[in-house]
Amino acid sequence: MNRNRNILLTNDDGIGAKGLLALTELLRPYGTITVVAPKEPQSGMSNAVSIITPIRLLPYEKGREITRYACTGTPTDCVKIAMSQLFIDQKPDLLVSGINHGSNTSAAVLYSGTLGAAAEGTLYGIPSIGFSLATPHDPDANFETCLHFGRIILEQYLSHPPAPHLYISVNIPDLPKEQIRGIRLARQGRGAWIKEFDKRVDPHGDPYYWLTGEYRNDEPEAPDTDQNLLRQGYVTVVPHQIDTTHYGELERLKQNWKFE
Amino acid sequence: MNRNRNILLTNDDGIGAKGLLALTELLRPYGTITVVAPKEPQSGMSNAVSIITPIRLLPYEKGREITRYACTGTPTDCVKIAMSQLFIDQKPDLLVSGINHGSNTSAAVLYSGTLGAAAEGTLYGIPSIGFSLATPHDPDANFETCLHFGRIILEQYLSHPPAPHLYISVNIPDLPKEQIRGIRLARQGRGAWIKEFDKRVDPHGDPYYWLTGEYRNDEPEAPDTDQNLLRQGYVTVVPHQIDTTHYGELERLKQNWKFE
Repeated sequence: MNRNRNILLTNDDGIGAKGLLALTELLRPYGTITVVAPKEPQSGMSNAVSIITPIRLLPYEKGREITRYACTGTPTDCVKIAMSQLFIDQKPDLLVSGINHGSNTSAAVLYSGTLGAAAEGTLYGIPSIGFSLATPHDPDANFETCLHFGRIILEQYLSHPPAPHLYISVNIPDLPKEQIRGIRLARQGRGAWIKEFDKRVDPHGDPYYWLTGEYRNDEPEAPDTDQNLLRQGYVTVVPHQIDTTHYGELERLKQNWKFE
Repeated sequence: MNRNRNILLTNDDGIGAKGLLALTELLRPYGTITVVAPKEPQSGMSNAVSIITPIRLLPYEKGREITRYACTGTPTDCVKIAMSQLFIDQKPDLLVSGINHGSNTSAAVLYSGTLGAAAEGTLYGIPSIGFSLATPHDPDANFETCLHFGRIILEQYLSHPPAPHLYISVNIPDLPKEQIRGIRLARQGRGAWIKEFDKRVDPHGDPYYWLTGEYRNDEPEAPDTDQNLLRQGYVTVVPHQIDTTHYGELERLKQNWKFE
């Protein structure tokens, strides 16, 4: 096994998250590990970057095989500062983000800090993967199933690397590994959260709102979406691209919209 | 002209931004306007949502044709709270975000709060548009060219609506309208920011980092990208989708990755 890889790890649950420790365990046999993870939890931060506030990069632990830093910014900031300050001469061979305490399928791909970091790695030309466990944000979640299937997927990934300009998102059901029905390559399902806020009133009589809501699956019968396969007990693997141009519509609008 | 539309406006530069006032002027002839915009600037917030902190929705101005609210959350939060609290029985006929003080082409699409809000509108099934002016974040930018070309594009948009499940991003050069070379339907260009941080030392001797950087255009000769056409003096129009599945790679990986 090639142990000479330089591997960058990050997440959005913060440097102390159990999922990040599990990810470190998963990747340790594959090379030298640098962790740059948010100092505080940054769930739902998407591809946000810190423009108005400067960030700090704080040494956290320096070892022979594993070095850790905490960053005061977003998951995307973590990747950017790692590339700017730590990987100056040579970029990492692999970037892995997670393991997220919560699934990242369908519309959640838009909001996910875990996948935001993977997308940022893609922009830097680094092979990038995001891992997510479908637990309801349990801080003490069990990552054993992730380690088992993560290893299988990493072996395929390294033997048959995906094309550049994309990242891979892996979602794992929160089940004992014996109950997993298999691994499926899938597409991003269509859906959205609705009825999203829990309205409360503060002690001064003024309203405030907590984000919550229920998920509306727009393709409940589709056999090939990430969300449906995940709920059926499959580990799902989706290749995601950066370019969001809708090429079919681009051609149609060129026919229909007249500007001169 | 149909003035019965209900139109939701938002942005990422904040409720006081000149670009939002310009957008209000642009949309005023088309219907009744509700503004829900961030209380403070939220540039670079992508599709971030407020999970850890609750948000507030603050009445700002109530008029017959225009009602304004400030929201303490992100641009995506603004759309979500508007849909949850203000458009309960009937969704808006149109969502328009901007006019951003700065361009949103290529990789900036990932980081943009302006386009994050438009993407969120799409998830709610609202026809959604983002407008951006290619000024270097000048708070006193001149939006006259935007108003002229924005009207032309809106007329085409309303006459020949795009397909559902996508939003439109419009970028306008920071030039007098006589110097604009035309309007072009375009695709999202490929590129990224590199060398991104300005390292400084605080009065206590500790380092901190400001996000800055230079843009690397990975397709400098492409005739059809948003960034290239914008720099050449064209107004660009790109249809963007939510689904980021790379379908070609999905099929290729199904052939190459063996899990059983």
